[in-house]
Amino acid sequence: MDDRRLGRRAFLGAAVTAAAGLVGAGSRTSRAGEAFHRTTDVVVIGFGAAGACAAVEARAAGADVLIVERAETGGGTSALAGGILYFGGGTALQRDLGYEDSVEDMFRYLMASSGPQPDEAKVRLFCERSVEHFDWIRARGVPFRTSFYKGISLPLTDDGLLYSGSELAHPFRDLARPAPRGHKVRALGGEGGALLMTKLIEAARRSGAAVTTGARCRSLLQEADGSVVGVELQTGDGVRSVRARRGVVVCAGGFCRNRDMVARFAPRYLDCDTPIGVAGDDGAGILMGMAAGGAAVRMDAGFSALPFHPPEKLIEGILVNAAGARFVNEDVYYGLAGEEIVRRQGGRAFLILDRDCSVDSAYARPRLVAEGSDAAELERAAGFADGALVATLELYNRHARDGRDPVFHKQARYLRPLDRAPLRILECSTDKAYYPFFTLGGLHTTTGGEVLDPFGSAVPGLYAAGRTTSGVSALGYSSGVSLSDATFFGRLAGRSAARRGAAS
Amino acid sequence: MDDRRLGRRAFLGAAVTAAAGLVGAGSRTSRAGEAFHRTTDVVVIGFGAAGACAAVEARAAGADVLIVERAETGGGTSALAGGILYFGGGTALQRDLGYEDSVEDMFRYLMASSGPQPDEAKVRLFCERSVEHFDWIRARGVPFRTSFYKGISLPLTDDGLLYSGSELAHPFRDLARPAPRGHKVRALGGEGGALLMTKLIEAARRSGAAVTTGARCRSLLQEADGSVVGVELQTGDGVRSVRARRGVVVCAGGFCRNRDMVARFAPRYLDCDTPIGVAGDDGAGILMGMAAGGAAVRMDAGFSALPFHPPEKLIEGILVNAAGARFVNEDVYYGLAGEEIVRRQGGRAFLILDRDCSVDSAYARPRLVAEGSDAAELERAAGFADGALVATLELYNRHARDGRDPVFHKQARYLRPLDRAPLRILECSTDKAYYPFFTLGGLHTTTGGEVLDPFGSAVPGLYAAGRTTSGVSALGYSSGVSLSDATFFGRLAGRSAARRGAAS
Repeated sequence: MDDRRLGRRAFLGAAVTAAAGLVGAGSRTSRAGEAFHRTTDVVVIGFGAAGACAAVEARAAGADVLIVERAETGGGTSALAGGILYFGGGTALQRDLGYEDSVEDMFRYLMASSGPQPDEAKVRLFCERSVEHFDWIRARGVPFRTSFYKGISLPLTDDGLLYSGSELAHPFRDLARPAPRGHKVRALGGEGGALLMTKLIEAARRSGAAVTTGARCRSLLQEADGSVVGVELQTGDGVRSVRARRGVVVCAGGFCRNRDMVARFAPRYLDCDTPIGVAGDDGAGILMGMAAGGAAVRMDAGFSALPFHPPEKLIEGILVNAAGARFVNEDVYYGLAGEEIVRRQGGRAFLILDRDCSVDSAYARPRLVAEGSDAAELERAAGFADGALVATLELYNRHARDGRDPVFHKQARYLRPLDRAPLRILECSTDKAYYPFFTLGGLHTTTGGEVLDPFGSAVPGLYAAGRTTSGVSALGYSSGVSLSDATFFGRLAGRSAARRGAAS
Repeated sequence: MDDRRLGRRAFLGAAVTAAAGLVGAGSRTSRAGEAFHRTTDVVVIGFGAAGACAAVEARAAGADVLIVERAETGGGTSALAGGILYFGGGTALQRDLGYEDSVEDMFRYLMASSGPQPDEAKVRLFCERSVEHFDWIRARGVPFRTSFYKGISLPLTDDGLLYSGSELAHPFRDLARPAPRGHKVRALGGEGGALLMTKLIEAARRSGAAVTTGARCRSLLQEADGSVVGVELQTGDGVRSVRARRGVVVCAGGFCRNRDMVARFAPRYLDCDTPIGVAGDDGAGILMGMAAGGAAVRMDAGFSALPFHPPEKLIEGILVNAAGARFVNEDVYYGLAGEEIVRRQGGRAFLILDRDCSVDSAYARPRLVAEGSDAAELERAAGFADGALVATLELYNRHARDGRDPVFHKQARYLRPLDRAPLRILECSTDKAYYPFFTLGGLHTTTGGEVLDPFGSAVPGLYAAGRTTSGVSALGYSSGVSLSDATFFGRLAGRSAARRGAAS
């Protein structure tokens, strides 16, 4: 158990503790003539990737900024990430390494892999400005090594560029010209997120934004017409109210650490064992935004992964459901395989390997169920219906011998018959393997970060970014999209807030 | 095409026209000293099944009631329904026909079939009071014939009791003792909903509730503290405001007719071709509730069906996905089969029949793709991967010869090998067959109908019921649950609203 925990810690960058209960928070009407403890132009709630970028851009647009962070230090869940950001369309790093890419290919890939019905305006802008956004992140001192990582799983190296999604896999490879778009911060293994946040926090401080840590936002303050005019904070010195002349930007993370919210909005993820998020991912930002009049959308959406590889060799195996049937090409991003299992297979899945691809070190630690000298023996030993697994393996092996997979179209490099005894079957069901997850639903925002009410009008003075919002990914996922989305739309939200009423 | 339309009309009870756009609606703060055009105790928005029952019970609790209906007559989507209501636990009708049932079996069935994570408190109360609720509905003059319908699809007869869900199908038959719980209003075929509403509308009028038709609610009126104190109506005579001394009960239906909302909250249903709902199912009630501070939950949930039978003979066929694999026991309620296809099979499915179960009149009108003298020929003709369909049929037929289905556990009465030439394959994909759908997500309410805000506190004065709320079914469905849920929780919401502040 201990080394399993260690494995997870390496993946996350830091240990994740038990789910936290939500402390009351909401929205209240600002009292007429209310005396504020402090006044600034823009308040940013949350000092993760989105908040840091919002602060930098709000400062650049000439606003006074106060960042409010619940924890004792900034970083948030972004600092736990491996540090892959999703950029494309021909970034400097892609070009330096000889990979061609285009805005259109990136757009087509994301539209196909981030749905159903991803927010097209967000995806479009995200792709069109990706080259610039990568340069901006680098200009904040975030380093990327000019080296390509050949594997498709999370690198333990400090290589800079990799395929971090399902670009090479069916059906995406036919919908958009594949390009590696995972840009990994130069740090070994899972330490990239911490380095990213060190640099973004430095940038925010350097920009002149004020920072208050150990301060939890209890309420958004609104005027009678609904305009958000400030925040009420719980600090070590008691309750403090802060007036925000121009706007409040909520960058307070998602809700994977709030089991009640997960049950209410995204119950499929109750089956997943490991929320990827700091305690602050308790949904308070989303709930406060809702209480202030914002609409939350796509709240059922999330990311769940079955990281059954690395090692990549395991992709030569096949995944089957409880009926013994394959359901996905095993070479998709393991976040897509995980979603298939959690949403479409009732949380049940098994990995079938033969001698040549059996390795003990499968990252997700699926449980060995049975071994057999052939398919029939394996099937009996594992308790599948008579003939079900045999039929699946016969069909797969017949085509794999020809280097083909006409049913699910796994890439040829992973195709060979699974016929070297012993055959093994490992259970990868949600209650038997490691399933990290986080939430992707949240406040409905414009590309500029304005929070929209249920009828599609902006709530004056209220902005949001990062996992407090529903962003580029409305279900499907590729590694790095969330950090890129948070930093990119964090920048835009900070700028929008700073410019509001600035001319008046 | 015409008779297909007729078929649908029979199913729905009335034609459904194109999706309607949403007219602006929301919430506004009641002006200090606002002069209302009218004052009552309880305003009920919507005169469908939930609204009618809310009005009757609010009147019974001593409140003055005004029902506001957008259309020129009451009835709403409830009047389009076939008129099956889901009751159990040993109703008079069940007992008269010799069927045993218990609250616990009904509860276990609904918890297993209405999830993931249905609202347990609602399901519990719904089951505990089901016997009483059936009697109450009957006492409103709604007739039920004491006769059992043997088929499992929508009866074209006026029989009173049937299996309307998946009670007899795996895995439900092993989780709860099956009992027929579909109680169908005594009217031929799809006319039951119209008769139900005739009786409930009569009951509401008889109770002394006032009714205003042709009046659309534009806004909920709130005091500065958030209490809902009335409504603003758009009528033929202009805008009228109504004060509600005790509360407002929103029973304004779901959002299947609002494509923007479906795209934003429940995009899977964009693939379904036929919203089951009147034009008023545009989500206005949900959006107004949200704007007034209520939280909407499970907004991704809905009902979609593939009514590939009747005739029941078609259940002897098998459903396969695009990979040629079975994915469900074909004898489940066709609403469950539809959800499997829409949510889990990417909207793609095929029905395989042999000569002995080929009938032209399949209700959903799947499109004939190919015929073949054997499985191999069928597979080639239909373009499935070499061997995929053959393997599926071989496995199915081998066990069906023994009267078994060890993989998906279809009931023995539908099991026989599909081997009488010609074999036929019909496409049942969402773009090729009839997929009726409606939405199940909505405002978060207590069992008493109080609308809850994002933090779980009641919005004072605001109540809701029916498809404006997230009710008993949070995804899975059995025919009749929505009408039973609407009438049952409509009653409770009406009572709650009437009693609020009544003692003061």
